[in-house]
Amino acid sequence: MPAVEWGNGRDGHIGLLQLAEDLCDAGRWCSTRGWVPATAGNFSFRTAPADGGRIFITASGLDKGAITPADLLDCNVLAGAGRPSAETSLHGVIYRDRPDAKAIFHIHSIWNTLLSDRFAQDGVVPLEGYEVLKALTGVNTHEHRELVPVLENSQEYGGLSLQLAEVLRMFPDAHGVLLRKHGLYTWGESIAGARRHLEALEFLFEVEARRLMGSW
Amino acid sequence: MPAVEWGNGRDGHIGLLQLAEDLCDAGRWCSTRGWVPATAGNFSFRTAPADGGRIFITASGLDKGAITPADLLDCNVLAGAGRPSAETSLHGVIYRDRPDAKAIFHIHSIWNTLLSDRFAQDGVVPLEGYEVLKALTGVNTHEHRELVPVLENSQEYGGLSLQLAEVLRMFPDAHGVLLRKHGLYTWGESIAGARRHLEALEFLFEVEARRLMGSW
Amino acid sequence: MPAVEWGNGRDGHIGLLQLAEDLCDAGRWCSTRGWVPATAGNFSFRTAPADGGRIFITASGLDKGAITPADLLDCNVLAGAGRPSAETSLHGVIYRDRPDAKAIFHIHSIWNTLLSDRFAQDGVVPLEGYEVLKALTGVNTHEHRELVPVLENSQEYGGLSLQLAEVLRMFPDAHGVLLRKHGLYTWGESIAGARRHLEALEFLFEVEARRLMGSW
Amino acid sequence: MPAVEWGNGRDGHIGLLQLAEDLCDAGRWCSTRGWVPATAGNFSFRTAPADGGRIFITASGLDKGAITPADLLDCNVLAGAGRPSAETSLHGVIYRDRPDAKAIFHIHSIWNTLLSDRFAQDGVVPLEGYEVLKALTGVNTHEHRELVPVLENSQEYGGLSLQLAEVLRMFPDAHGVLLRKHGLYTWGESIAGARRHLEALEFLFEVEARRLMGSW
Repeated sequence: MPAVEWGNGRDGHIGLLQLAEDLCDAGRWCSTRGWVPATAGNFSFRTAPADGGRIFITASGLDKGAITPADLLDCNVLAGAGRPSAETSLHGVIYRDRPDAKAIFHIHSIWNTLLSDRFAQDGVVPLEGYEVLKALTGVNTHEHRELVPVLENSQEYGGLSLQLAEVLRMFPDAHGVLLRKHGLYTWGESIAGARRHLEALEFLFEVEARRLMGSW
Repeated sequence: MPAVEWGNGRDGHIGLLQLAEDLCDAGRWCSTRGWVPATAGNFSFRTAPADGGRIFITASGLDKGAITPADLLDCNVLAGAGRPSAETSLHGVIYRDRPDAKAIFHIHSIWNTLLSDRFAQDGVVPLEGYEVLKALTGVNTHEHRELVPVLENSQEYGGLSLQLAEVLRMFPDAHGVLLRKHGLYTWGESIAGARRHLEALEFLFEVEARRLMGSW
Repeated sequence: MPAVEWGNGRDGHIGLLQLAEDLCDAGRWCSTRGWVPATAGNFSFRTAPADGGRIFITASGLDKGAITPADLLDCNVLAGAGRPSAETSLHGVIYRDRPDAKAIFHIHSIWNTLLSDRFAQDGVVPLEGYEVLKALTGVNTHEHRELVPVLENSQEYGGLSLQLAEVLRMFPDAHGVLLRKHGLYTWGESIAGARRHLEALEFLFEVEARRLMGSW
Repeated sequence: MPAVEWGNGRDGHIGLLQLAEDLCDAGRWCSTRGWVPATAGNFSFRTAPADGGRIFITASGLDKGAITPADLLDCNVLAGAGRPSAETSLHGVIYRDRPDAKAIFHIHSIWNTLLSDRFAQDGVVPLEGYEVLKALTGVNTHEHRELVPVLENSQEYGGLSLQLAEVLRMFPDAHGVLLRKHGLYTWGESIAGARRHLEALEFLFEVEARRLMGSW
């Protein structure tokens, strides 16, 4: 697979490269928080429609805390000897069914792993009454009940893609989806927006998990 | 809204700019501790009476771990296209009713969020018998019972301002106020003093929450 | 004991020195995570068979977050006034009975210490159903049950070596071994591989310990 | 109070200054771990008998993560306008009754605060069976029962000094003493040794507190 040519965005070389560097920076940020252990997690961004709506994603098997733009794959020319992650298809589903999404982050954290298992039977993790919910796009008050869908984990990504599409349809206002004992997918209208959603959801997961686990 | 001119404090350009930089440094410090997740939190300082008692506050919607003096708003000329935080009014109440306050920090932490919910019905979080209480201005012994008032959270800031004024009146010795599932407001006689109060209260919140949640 | 001469690997001076520096980097990385408290832990690597299969290990009693290549011992010429760790023999057993192992990390963490004690009577810590299990070499699905053997701790390293050999034989697919209230031994087909196993196992230990300790 | 003249140790200017810098480095190290919140904690060292056994201690009220040699007080010429900590007397008792002690660290951590309260009635925190115990000077096996005495906290330092002397006499092998809901005092035969004791004891406090608080 040929290397990505960073020079062909609408804004020229610098615009596209800046997006790639912002994605790598988000990877380092997640790494320092312990959210991409042992090469886990993957990250992607999509350019504006006028720039072709091109999708770039991290290659599989790398330490996401040490990626550079050279480690990103161009999904539009996906072919050849490279190693796209098996989870690339899930990014595709989200970009298709969430037209405003410009970036997707998938991470594994202690707290989202714990909650995804605890609420797997219910099918959703409820988050309610927290001020930090207002960091989610479109939420203007703490009097909001966010439902984060939980899917059973699977290595059969075709079926998982269909299930992901189904929960995106059933929960049109959701800002993220959990895979059981696996991790979180969240997205945003920009790389900064996806990062904000990630930080808000992980804060809320930790608070909720600690509250539920405590014997008070 | 025009940019703040940092050159007009009593001590000249450098004095005011130093305060602004100290506030930004406190933002970075809070960010590394996870206390300003997803653009949450806000920070302000007030100049000495001889310098006009001017109030400067962080603009809304920014990552408080990456602010610079250019991101501060001058509350005395508040007008125009900028985005002051809806919580600016709460800072105003505290500066009015705590004449010695020269800086106010508002943060969201895992532990203050948990305790604010656990003690919302009681209306106060009690902290008692800890040596670290002596870091609070005016407290000279661990044999002190600090009561941190808890207000119900609200998006109606007019009413919230009145309630805040009421608890400041009822608890004249309080060093901080909690909003339920929202966060802590604390203040000090200087930026360093507010920072010391913040660190002391958060240490005590974590100890108390862990003690109460443990099954021992 | 003479200093190691880093210049005699198949790849020449730089190849061997690079391995030594990668091992020291892993030490710093473990130190920032709190995994080598109070000079605890030890690290080793083995060169390729064509390079003689030479084994190098950290000297005892040092802060593993501050080691340099000069702090490594060449196990093949082990003699003289130096201080090899008493646990060097355990590294030898693993290198003998796991021919693919090229690096071994031994660390003490809060979570592996807790789990090793909790499951000592069972003789194994079970880890099951987590996506992160796929970071372990040879594991391709979360539908995997990893059994991490637990040995009683001992200061008698001869007997301990025999017990370690026994569990390596009984659990041929294991990626690590715990010593009760002592710590984890894990290995990999390279320094990066051992580091990935370490990070994956510690993530799983923390999730499992928190899940089991919670009152939910 | 005149500034310390760092140039009068047996080893000349550099030897004494190096000790001062090592102490400040330990302060920064404690600060990053959250062990000196809100200006809490104090640190001291004592020179070798041949250098006069001089004692230097951090001044009160400072952020121990930002101290420099200029913030140390020379206890032998203690006088004038400076602010020695009220706890300086406790350092003096330890140096008198532990002749080998060359450095003393006093810190406040979440875990030592929790355990000091939980075990105050028993008068000691027991730590037993952990490999990390071997990091304590003179301990050669995990089959060791370390008893860390707990004193009731007090602002009356004369009485507290007498009680401290009493527990040092009763527990001649102890490596540290806790004050209830206040913090830990530990010492060592050098600054590095005191740091190793601190790290070992805090690791053990966290493991023990988590083990006891868990509902498993």
